[in-house]
Amino acid sequence: VKGLSLKGYRKSCWYEEEIEENLRWSFALNSILHTGATQYQEIALLDTKPFGKALVIDGKLQSAEVDEFIYHESLVHPALLHHPNPKTIFIMGGGEGSTARELLRHKTVDKVVMCDIDEEVVEFCRSYLEVNREAFCDPRLELIINDARAELENRNECFDVIIGDLADPIEGGPCYKLYTKSFYELAVKPRLNQGGIFVTQAGPAGIFSHTEVFSCIFNTLKQGFKYVVPYSAHIPSFADTWGWVMASDAPLALSAEDLDLKIKQRIKGENRYFDGKTFSSASILSKAVRQSLDNETEVYTEKTARFIYGHGTAFKDNQD
Amino acid sequence: VKGLSLKGYRKSCWYEEEIEENLRWSFALNSILHTGATQYQEIALLDTKPFGKALVIDGKLQSAEVDEFIYHESLVHPALLHHPNPKTIFIMGGGEGSTARELLRHKTVDKVVMCDIDEEVVEFCRSYLEVNREAFCDPRLELIINDARAELENRNECFDVIIGDLADPIEGGPCYKLYTKSFYELAVKPRLNQGGIFVTQAGPAGIFSHTEVFSCIFNTLKQGFKYVVPYSAHIPSFADTWGWVMASDAPLALSAEDLDLKIKQRIKGENRYFDGKTFSSASILSKAVRQSLDNETEVYTEKTARFIYGHGTAFKDNQD
Amino acid sequence: VKGLSLKGYRKSCWYEEEIEENLRWSFALNSILHTGATQYQEIALLDTKPFGKALVIDGKLQSAEVDEFIYHESLVHPALLHHPNPKTIFIMGGGEGSTARELLRHKTVDKVVMCDIDEEVVEFCRSYLEVNREAFCDPRLELIINDARAELENRNECFDVIIGDLADPIEGGPCYKLYTKSFYELAVKPRLNQGGIFVTQAGPAGIFSHTEVFSCIFNTLKQGFKYVVPYSAHIPSFADTWGWVMASDAPLALSAEDLDLKIKQRIKGENRYFDGKTFSSASILSKAVRQSLDNETEVYTEKTARFIYGHGTAFKDNQD
Amino acid sequence: VKGLSLKGYRKSCWYEEEIEENLRWSFALNSILHTGATQYQEIALLDTKPFGKALVIDGKLQSAEVDEFIYHESLVHPALLHHPNPKTIFIMGGGEGSTARELLRHKTVDKVVMCDIDEEVVEFCRSYLEVNREAFCDPRLELIINDARAELENRNECFDVIIGDLADPIEGGPCYKLYTKSFYELAVKPRLNQGGIFVTQAGPAGIFSHTEVFSCIFNTLKQGFKYVVPYSAHIPSFADTWGWVMASDAPLALSAEDLDLKIKQRIKGENRYFDGKTFSSASILSKAVRQSLDNETEVYTEKTARFIYGHGTAFKDNQD
Repeated sequence: VKGLSLKGYRKSCWYEEEIEENLRWSFALNSILHTGATQYQEIALLDTKPFGKALVIDGKLQSAEVDEFIYHESLVHPALLHHPNPKTIFIMGGGEGSTARELLRHKTVDKVVMCDIDEEVVEFCRSYLEVNREAFCDPRLELIINDARAELENRNECFDVIIGDLADPIEGGPCYKLYTKSFYELAVKPRLNQGGIFVTQAGPAGIFSHTEVFSCIFNTLKQGFKYVVPYSAHIPSFADTWGWVMASDAPLALSAEDLDLKIKQRIKGENRYFDGKTFSSASILSKAVRQSLDNETEVYTEKTARFIYGHGTAFKDNQD
Repeated sequence: VKGLSLKGYRKSCWYEEEIEENLRWSFALNSILHTGATQYQEIALLDTKPFGKALVIDGKLQSAEVDEFIYHESLVHPALLHHPNPKTIFIMGGGEGSTARELLRHKTVDKVVMCDIDEEVVEFCRSYLEVNREAFCDPRLELIINDARAELENRNECFDVIIGDLADPIEGGPCYKLYTKSFYELAVKPRLNQGGIFVTQAGPAGIFSHTEVFSCIFNTLKQGFKYVVPYSAHIPSFADTWGWVMASDAPLALSAEDLDLKIKQRIKGENRYFDGKTFSSASILSKAVRQSLDNETEVYTEKTARFIYGHGTAFKDNQD
Repeated sequence: VKGLSLKGYRKSCWYEEEIEENLRWSFALNSILHTGATQYQEIALLDTKPFGKALVIDGKLQSAEVDEFIYHESLVHPALLHHPNPKTIFIMGGGEGSTARELLRHKTVDKVVMCDIDEEVVEFCRSYLEVNREAFCDPRLELIINDARAELENRNECFDVIIGDLADPIEGGPCYKLYTKSFYELAVKPRLNQGGIFVTQAGPAGIFSHTEVFSCIFNTLKQGFKYVVPYSAHIPSFADTWGWVMASDAPLALSAEDLDLKIKQRIKGENRYFDGKTFSSASILSKAVRQSLDNETEVYTEKTARFIYGHGTAFKDNQD
Repeated sequence: VKGLSLKGYRKSCWYEEEIEENLRWSFALNSILHTGATQYQEIALLDTKPFGKALVIDGKLQSAEVDEFIYHESLVHPALLHHPNPKTIFIMGGGEGSTARELLRHKTVDKVVMCDIDEEVVEFCRSYLEVNREAFCDPRLELIINDARAELENRNECFDVIIGDLADPIEGGPCYKLYTKSFYELAVKPRLNQGGIFVTQAGPAGIFSHTEVFSCIFNTLKQGFKYVVPYSAHIPSFADTWGWVMASDAPLALSAEDLDLKIKQRIKGENRYFDGKTFSSASILSKAVRQSLDNETEVYTEKTARFIYGHGTAFKDNQD
């Protein structure tokens, strides 16, 4: 039996993520709630001291209990509030359930189609993420296990809002084809009702990191939509500012006061992050990011994809 | 001789900081340029891969080459631009030299008094931080080694702008007495010219971290000044959003266009971070932070200081 | 949902121990099986990738599934085999149960008294360490919750072998008083039958680390016993060579062949680590360690205790 | 300027090595003295707190100032002392210079040929490792930059002792062909004088790690030499027990007393690690390792190489 050390002196168990090759971010752990591998990815649910329960897929933090509301409120509410009467929504990805949860808080919403490719991740989240349990049981939710592109192409119906809650466009990852100009033109726009809005998560949007994919997703959407609004918010557990881009052929221009009024009218319960002023701030990008988006010339096509740090399974498999 | 591993496989040398007890932030290292100890603190200058040269004092990153401009432009330019004609400036702390560097870019500025308590840190930064070399040589800069409070109390002259570029109010740290209501009333306000502006760094201002000291600094300044403007910005190397508070008895209300015009008229060279829209975004706080500042009741006094994670030397000395 | 990284690229969850202030040892984690705090210490049972289940007390690895046999076979078998007919054994500490398990493999043994101060650790190990379940149920085992010194002083009976399976003598730890000359003279020797043997774990015994406590424990025992045999073995999970000291007033001199014969006669099942040649090697210390033990002059008394890295609860409590 | 933390509270700069995929070993750093890349490998010289100056090649610690004497005395002295009159020595590898340094302490030695493939590593060590400076200047040292096999095959002369101070046999590493049966038969034995001795470092030899390459190197040498002696020692900075194998067609059997006498007669200065008893202990392997070596059936050939953790450059290059 070895010597005692100072009680509580230092934490012993850590989750550690390489944000980039040269940058690490580590959370003290309470416990490892679950680990496993699906057909597509490795998943883990951790109980972390600084950020609560954390969903990790393929070694990357996806969502942390204490601040996922920032990501999901930012993804969902701007598009739905800018739409005059959003009734039908299509989520590409979103298997975690939090995007559906935020959508189903909108009183106007009749139907949410959530289309995720990985059934096991969906089952995993349905079982373990209590905060989304109610959403998974909501009769307005239709859950489809399929490739989002195939699903969009095969369905006849259109939607008021389509939401991209996908992994970033990573080399060899499953998702990069869902960020291309042709995908937006051929699969997304035809499935939007008139006045419909598309919104997508758009990767890191920090003062340096926005050049990885954010500026290019913005520019790609600008090719296909008349009105495109990029916005961002700092998410502590991601150790970065995150970006989203909203796009439509109808104008996207509500004042902070308009937004606050619509929030009151349409959303059940209280938002924790999003309100009119928050969006005013989020949608004014800082000087460097703004200039960089203005000057971006690259457009995502299947041939010119730009990738962020990391490699997906397909890439890896090609190397083995 | 032991076996070879995969070339370039993983970085071997790391700088690691405990942001909180349960949260770590690590940068791959190129080299350790200098380490040493002054009368007051331990200092190190590191060459890091993700953030360039990094100044570390007492185990806490102070400033990183690639993004210190966010902190220093945010600290300096809003106050100077809101002042009609800022000629004389007093910096409490600021030994690194970057605050002076930004100040001296303002054509209106005649005189900058930089008052730092730690001569060795000042000498260290003067020697090692090339980016501030010119500022240290500027004849408009008067460098004083002294306690900022003592210096302010002993000087007869007043200033157009007083800038707090101090360490956070930490238990046992040298600086917490420079954040109190009585200090603002008895030492700062009497040394401001009419229409003068006080601005201070105000610690982390993230969605959770703003309750550590930011909201309380804001509330404390509200007790003594008619107009108080809090604002914030995400600083990647700090892994958090940072906060500043600007305060005056004269109104602080310029539009983005006004600010852009004054930048053009008054500041030599191009800002990398700060412009009118950036400040619009930075000065609209998100919902949770805004509410929390509105509801803050605590005021810093010498007896009720609130502290952030970590302990300063004096605290430690008491424990030994 | 953030980007995918290279599958299986790097481990994410780690147990990390500071062996010394400047030296860390980290194991990838499968899971955190249990954590808790007793009256005396913080305990955790981890499932580690390199070393299997690991028992951690107050942030220090105590015992790892894959190599605890090295420690426990080394602690138990030399003393019992050198004794002509060991029937009654007293364990100071040993709450993990592994020492009892090894003792109860000896056919000569009639009675094992295990005296540990921390009932909760004993219960914890009884519940979680399957490998010791049989030992905890053995009718020859008498389990006492008490301070080992008090127990030894209050019992009238004597023992053939007394075993020290205690934490290292750490400043403020519960155990340092059980390594002193006076303890050996007043509590241990009077409770040994004639020809009895005392053996104790004796801390790290590496080429540098043996000066922490090993040489001093050896020298202290030399003051009170005629024959004293130090020996050591590398324990991978401890990242060091470990030491034990065996002491008696009867000669301790068996050849490798003698030992192998007695192992065959007396021990049920097969040893994984210990045999005659292994002990020959273990009991010949390398040059530097041998010289250092020969030249050691310090003796543990309650006043001159020497401590290894770390501080126990009592020390900490005094600082709070 | 951010808040002060507890002075000296925790070390900030670390060298970190993945000993295996699931096991890390980290040293606090004083400084990074030099980093660079040669034609063959990446090299770094670090100043570490726990182990002094450390030479790191391709992310693996090769040698640390405070304990390299254990490795190098163990590699050199047993073979030279078992030889009746060793005059000429050939070192395969050894560019660090420490092996030559230990050899040149032997009064019998007339000539040392050191043959390393990487000129830049040799130059690097000659410049930076002061402890070997004298050895590099010794007129008895002949330094050759070449592949060791080619050099041995092309030379006509024979040697009294040949020493393998090579990297472990790693997949894609430069060295695995220098551990094969055919290499020993065709290149080494023909270059040994009658009664000559071959000795090689033989990788980790811990209770678990000895199956990586140690047992197989032992078994391979047994195929070609009449007398083969494996031995091992714990090297703290390697976090493992290390192994060497000595082989000859002449008997290798000296008592501890014989060895001590020869040390006195032949070696200048005092050994820090090696003496007769140390070798007695080192050459008696513990039960599990002994059995495993006895039962080893694998022989290194160019086709059946067994590798330890990590991959060399050639392997990596094939993947790119």
